[in-house]
Amino acid sequence: MMARIDDGLAFMLKFENVSRYEEGAVIILDRRVYPSKIEYVHCEDYHAVAKAIGEMVTQSGGPWLAASLGMVSAARAARGLSEEKAKSLLEDAAYILTHARPTTSRRMVAYIQTVVDTAWQAIVAGKDPEEAAYQYVMDRLEDRYRKARRIGENVVSLLPDDVTILTQCFAETLIGYTLSVAQEQGKKVRLYCPETRPYLQGARLTASVAYDQGVDVTVITDNMPGYILSQGMADVFICAADVISLDGYVVNKIGTYQIALAAHENQVPFYVLGSPSPVNHTIDTVKIELRDSNEVLHAMGVRTAKEGVKGFYPAFDITPPKLVSAVIAAEGIFSPYNLRATFDKGDIIEE
Amino acid sequence: MMARIDDGLAFMLKFENVSRYEEGAVIILDRRVYPSKIEYVHCEDYHAVAKAIGEMVTQSGGPWLAASLGMVSAARAARGLSEEKAKSLLEDAAYILTHARPTTSRRMVAYIQTVVDTAWQAIVAGKDPEEAAYQYVMDRLEDRYRKARRIGENVVSLLPDDVTILTQCFAETLIGYTLSVAQEQGKKVRLYCPETRPYLQGARLTASVAYDQGVDVTVITDNMPGYILSQGMADVFICAADVISLDGYVVNKIGTYQIALAAHENQVPFYVLGSPSPVNHTIDTVKIELRDSNEVLHAMGVRTAKEGVKGFYPAFDITPPKLVSAVIAAEGIFSPYNLRATFDKGDIIEE
Repeated sequence: MMARIDDGLAFMLKFENVSRYEEGAVIILDRRVYPSKIEYVHCEDYHAVAKAIGEMVTQSGGPWLAASLGMVSAARAARGLSEEKAKSLLEDAAYILTHARPTTSRRMVAYIQTVVDTAWQAIVAGKDPEEAAYQYVMDRLEDRYRKARRIGENVVSLLPDDVTILTQCFAETLIGYTLSVAQEQGKKVRLYCPETRPYLQGARLTASVAYDQGVDVTVITDNMPGYILSQGMADVFICAADVISLDGYVVNKIGTYQIALAAHENQVPFYVLGSPSPVNHTIDTVKIELRDSNEVLHAMGVRTAKEGVKGFYPAFDITPPKLVSAVIAAEGIFSPYNLRATFDKGDIIEE
Repeated sequence: MMARIDDGLAFMLKFENVSRYEEGAVIILDRRVYPSKIEYVHCEDYHAVAKAIGEMVTQSGGPWLAASLGMVSAARAARGLSEEKAKSLLEDAAYILTHARPTTSRRMVAYIQTVVDTAWQAIVAGKDPEEAAYQYVMDRLEDRYRKARRIGENVVSLLPDDVTILTQCFAETLIGYTLSVAQEQGKKVRLYCPETRPYLQGARLTASVAYDQGVDVTVITDNMPGYILSQGMADVFICAADVISLDGYVVNKIGTYQIALAAHENQVPFYVLGSPSPVNHTIDTVKIELRDSNEVLHAMGVRTAKEGVKGFYPAFDITPPKLVSAVIAAEGIFSPYNLRATFDKGDIIEE
């Protein structure tokens, strides 16, 4: 069982924030130091996984996989407990893992609850909750990659044969599939990655993954997308989203809004990749995460500003539907003004 | 003579990219390492000054003062030469000093030529060219500070009594006077400084100078101005410009354009401080400087992106007049669409 993530998902793992599960432990690739160092954070239990997620060890889709493997670890710990204690432990783990970071939590709560339910049903049925939870998490991961590939196919259908893409932050699975599908179809692709301060996910992660895929990739600083767009140097702006609310707003890494404004001003289409959130019917249900302002006052670990100067670090911003050309989901290509018809199911969607 | 810049200009030097002149040498504060280290680059002759300017030792108004003191050094070297050799040396120095960086060169060429003329007239009149050039440079510096203070007074007349200013990059004299005039008038001022990658002039320089003036100052990364503006957190966007062309375009540090777009979208006024350029009648006469792309791939000296990934570094961008609320000059407050009436004199303006 434990080897399956290593032998079955080779293509996926080219793009993934690699986390793996080993006998109760979750081992997470430390994206904070990648690519200059390849290091892993070894989490012995779900508390350690939550701490790692909160400390930005993993990003993009990484926290989903790490949290769900943290739940498998909790399911292992629940083996042999009384039903009451097992249930309490699973619910405690679900709460801690989904509240490690605030902004994406509502959707993650819904998904992690399905892992809790799977483990709980196994316990009630007298089966091994760890085995059941792990199997479930792997099945959902395969579903997620299938959907990501469909999103890649859908967005690539809109791109010219020779295309320069501007992206933002790090969406390794979705941008990874977009690039690989484009390459499979023989399209010539160039990529501009804003570096995405303060964590520099664009420079460190997106650019590395794209480079490894053989894409011509250029890093720019976060004050340059407007210039790139004004000079006709990018044909399209494509990024993923932390949340797409059903009223068409896009919550994504800070900076997305000002790039979208510049794209709109310069008649460059903006495509957002991802599934609209079934739990965020309107944008006012989304809370913007404020992170440690100290991060803004350092670059690559070195203090930039004088002592006494303050920092401010909103992790995300909100782009209104008028700046969004299309939402590209696995189900198809949608106007941001017409998401409810397809996505307002009222039910829980796993990642 | 040599002590004058130290004893006469105390207030100015609070804001200045300090350069001083000592017996042929120009000593320049190294803004690349400030504020973490206070170090000076000692330039023995005008060649060394040009090299220092090209290597970004000094920024904002700093290159103007450094280049003009480099001309004083050249005037000293011209003492005792034949008129032909002296003239050739002065012209060589003027060329080298004004071409150390490309974008602001046309205006600096015009100003440095007046220093050449002053030194040359002293030689022809049998006077000391070093003494004459130094006196002239100091007089122009005093003029420049008087004009900067008037610009500060003009922009402060537009600000509410309790104001949060968003700025961009480093304009120490103009933003310095704006803040100090506002403080003299009892206005309460807060300042947001985008860090201004890749050199981080906002975090390292603007924030330090403003903090030393007692201003409540907060650094943000370059992907955050749009969010700040969308949330109503800034009342006004104010910056200086490397060039304001007579047709109303603003050439300033990369990122200004996308901030101006976000200010306009959110009904926040954008005031540009400075004198429209008499030598740039239209924007198409301005060349955008491309700098070493390696800078974009490093932060505080540490490599951010994987080897093989490319960088791109346009130093400036262009903001069209439709996004500019007013141009604030020493002469008054102007619409960007009506600069020619006042500033198209066809003659040379010293800084």
